[in-house]
Amino acid sequence: MNGAESLVRSLLNCGVNTCFANPGTSEMHFVAALDRVPGMRCVPSLFEGVATGAADGYGRMLDKPAATLLHLGPGLANGLANLHNARRAGTPVVNIVGEHASWHLTADAPLHTDIAALAGPMSRWVHTSAGSLQLGQDAVDAVHASMAKGGQVATLIAPADAAWQPGAVGGKLEPPTCAPAPAEAIGAAARALLAPGRSMLMVGGRALRAPALEVAARISALTGARLACPTSNARIERGSGRAAVERMPYPLSRAMAFMQGVERLILVGARAPVAFFGYPDGPSSLVPPGCQVIELANTDCDLLATLELLAQRLDARTAPLHPASTAPAEGEPRWDPDGIMRTVAGLLPDQAILVDEALTSGHTLFQHTVHAAPHDHLQLTGGAIGMGLPVATGAAVACPSRKVISLEGDGSGMYTAQALWTQARERLNVLTLVFANRGYQILRGEMAGMGVSTQGPQASRMLDIEDPELDWVRLANAMGVEAATASSIAQLRGLMQSALAKSGPFLIEVRLNR
Amino acid sequence: MNGAESLVRSLLNCGVNTCFANPGTSEMHFVAALDRVPGMRCVPSLFEGVATGAADGYGRMLDKPAATLLHLGPGLANGLANLHNARRAGTPVVNIVGEHASWHLTADAPLHTDIAALAGPMSRWVHTSAGSLQLGQDAVDAVHASMAKGGQVATLIAPADAAWQPGAVGGKLEPPTCAPAPAEAIGAAARALLAPGRSMLMVGGRALRAPALEVAARISALTGARLACPTSNARIERGSGRAAVERMPYPLSRAMAFMQGVERLILVGARAPVAFFGYPDGPSSLVPPGCQVIELANTDCDLLATLELLAQRLDARTAPLHPASTAPAEGEPRWDPDGIMRTVAGLLPDQAILVDEALTSGHTLFQHTVHAAPHDHLQLTGGAIGMGLPVATGAAVACPSRKVISLEGDGSGMYTAQALWTQARERLNVLTLVFANRGYQILRGEMAGMGVSTQGPQASRMLDIEDPELDWVRLANAMGVEAATASSIAQLRGLMQSALAKSGPFLIEVRLNR
Repeated sequence: MNGAESLVRSLLNCGVNTCFANPGTSEMHFVAALDRVPGMRCVPSLFEGVATGAADGYGRMLDKPAATLLHLGPGLANGLANLHNARRAGTPVVNIVGEHASWHLTADAPLHTDIAALAGPMSRWVHTSAGSLQLGQDAVDAVHASMAKGGQVATLIAPADAAWQPGAVGGKLEPPTCAPAPAEAIGAAARALLAPGRSMLMVGGRALRAPALEVAARISALTGARLACPTSNARIERGSGRAAVERMPYPLSRAMAFMQGVERLILVGARAPVAFFGYPDGPSSLVPPGCQVIELANTDCDLLATLELLAQRLDARTAPLHPASTAPAEGEPRWDPDGIMRTVAGLLPDQAILVDEALTSGHTLFQHTVHAAPHDHLQLTGGAIGMGLPVATGAAVACPSRKVISLEGDGSGMYTAQALWTQARERLNVLTLVFANRGYQILRGEMAGMGVSTQGPQASRMLDIEDPELDWVRLANAMGVEAATASSIAQLRGLMQSALAKSGPFLIEVRLNR
Repeated sequence: MNGAESLVRSLLNCGVNTCFANPGTSEMHFVAALDRVPGMRCVPSLFEGVATGAADGYGRMLDKPAATLLHLGPGLANGLANLHNARRAGTPVVNIVGEHASWHLTADAPLHTDIAALAGPMSRWVHTSAGSLQLGQDAVDAVHASMAKGGQVATLIAPADAAWQPGAVGGKLEPPTCAPAPAEAIGAAARALLAPGRSMLMVGGRALRAPALEVAARISALTGARLACPTSNARIERGSGRAAVERMPYPLSRAMAFMQGVERLILVGARAPVAFFGYPDGPSSLVPPGCQVIELANTDCDLLATLELLAQRLDARTAPLHPASTAPAEGEPRWDPDGIMRTVAGLLPDQAILVDEALTSGHTLFQHTVHAAPHDHLQLTGGAIGMGLPVATGAAVACPSRKVISLEGDGSGMYTAQALWTQARERLNVLTLVFANRGYQILRGEMAGMGVSTQGPQASRMLDIEDPELDWVRLANAMGVEAATASSIAQLRGLMQSALAKSGPFLIEVRLNR
């Protein structure tokens, strides 16, 4: 057994059985090992950002890591933006990067660069394997690190000679454990929630799964504290029959209004809110002046157990839940972003996985989907666009029996459109809706927010995706994905219904008016 | 005048008048400044790897930098692979990366990451602007740094508040100067070239421009030293009537044979050759045992002046040039990579810019183009695939009156296919040929080189781009580029001739047999 085989065997022993790969020369022994060691599903992609984003989507759905397999520093570099999103999502990812043979590093060959330096900012754990006999155990350590602190990116750098020399399988994985917040902290949070004045219970990370959310909602109902979550979240279990949570809006003025008047902020798996960008004369922190911040539990903790202990202390475990604060919209939806989001929400199948990179077009999505069938909502956690199609790809690999609905902007979708090919290759159940407003629409609003009052012709041209327009139907077809265009609610409905009735990928270009 | 305007004015004062941009919120003031300060051509792209690769192509052609404009750490990350190639090419690039407002950094907002750490491996100069009044001078310093040492990547990190607060234009650029190698070094090189035994004069960087190559060829003719260049080069001025240079082959066994018997290696703007990858039982250095290495001049030096002084010392300035060592191929070319490359070489228009990321398909390109019309040959310098379409884009922006012929693999082309949209938007004269062999063909050879003897079904599937096949005609059309398929020499010839007679971009999918 060589080092490459020991790596594959060690990963399998840890339960890691899926690898999103873009290999090159230095990784050929790992590729070869896939045929000698059965059990590892290896999913190819045409660009590394697809591989890392898919690992993010996979990890979000299964709470266990997939591996990546990337080629040297430039291959890692291409995957960094989606590793950034994975890092912000708290997703477990075992990010494996091939390296030149150890004795070839000083040659500074053309592809050589400082892989560990590149990996650092996006990883919580980085390790270069010292040799083939260590590689198996390094893999076990990487899996362990990826599952610590609620999920993180662990980068293992594997020199080519560690792959081809004799290897040894690593030891048994002892999965990291996490405890609930200590009793004193729970007591302090309970007192804060019972004190007079306006409180907010802000939950994030795994506290956004249905069981934890339900407990949080009962606490909210009993104490009158508002139940809220951050703007961008890795995965929220939502929809009809599930506890609703208010989401902090993205635009600064609305985010500030959302937080206004909050006197006590109790955090469970969420960080104290900050502005997404620093704007002229804008704040950095979004915690209102004088508001008391109580960090009850961060993502290192068992969030569900923490909330249950808090509910127990408050005697809130059987408090009645409030229904969703908004009623379902009525009347026929119009052909505008709001009407389209209502239509999408109405057609979500049970247990759908909704991957949301719709940005401006998806403005009102969250309010409509509270009434949709039970589903998982996955968002753009790190702000690095190009996450949607890859995350949808990985989620579909993770959950083959569920339907993935991928909502994408035309600007953000072009970053990693190569994911469509992987969806076709693997026959994944992904329905992609591209909202074609033919521009980086979000930046028009941002420009005003930044204090730029007039927009001249050069600036305007920088924010357009026109001249030429993109043709998403051809783009999807070029990569083997069936596609069609919708220009009315009836068309959209018909296309969605027929696409959801079939298996395999499909793409709908939703042509918005400008 | 705010900092953003001071940046644009300072760049223009330094002669930097082209910016390849992917801006986001933190860069909105820079975008706005484009309309207030005339003279900066801003070229949009749909992915940062297009912007950085275009800056590489532009800098290679004009020997002066273009600027980029990238959005925070993730935007930089997406551009790193092509900055890696630019670094290896020795291309001057002013890489401008927006940063959060300085007072917002400690908030660790979602998009925050360590930009300087990410920039480090691919940049020779990294600086974070200390404020709006410094930003203008920082731009001048960045231009200076980008032009030092024959060309390098200079990354300027510009906080958003430095853009919107009051700015000041930077001082006058004093372009870096370079001197020829000292007289003693020239004397030593001359003695080595005149000594008995087999010598090789290996030239790289700007010594591959026609005037320097001609001097080098006369030295070679007089002394009997072989004239050679590295495998991958930023830009070689080649073709009929120009001095020919032997190029080191890529495959290890052929590279070793190429160097075999060389007793003295004189380097002018080239590094001592090393293996592209470290293979089991393979060497790291490709300098034969016992060979004397004389580093006459590195890229910090004036390479043309160095060669002229050497020729003077050797009295070689009027030595007759040898004709190209191979005769033009005869007979009708066949429909295989060799025949296709012959056809391409035969149709190159005068002063064409040949961007070469054909990889396996382009195996014999170099031997055929020695007889082609005078042209510039631009190669993949850093081994990070996805350079071809962006470099072609930037070269076409730099040289609007010349034809760019972009040779691309189907695997490498998919990395940054978004460049086609920029070519359409800017009506660039780029003819792209995609060699569709439906696989990462180069890796099949690499697998054997790495000592993997059998290729199982999983490995095979990882190296294919089939099931589904890519349709490059639809892909190009989707981004506004006209395209057609060629399956015979006659078709290819007809399509190339008609495309070259028109202006604007065109793509030919060259369907190779497997």
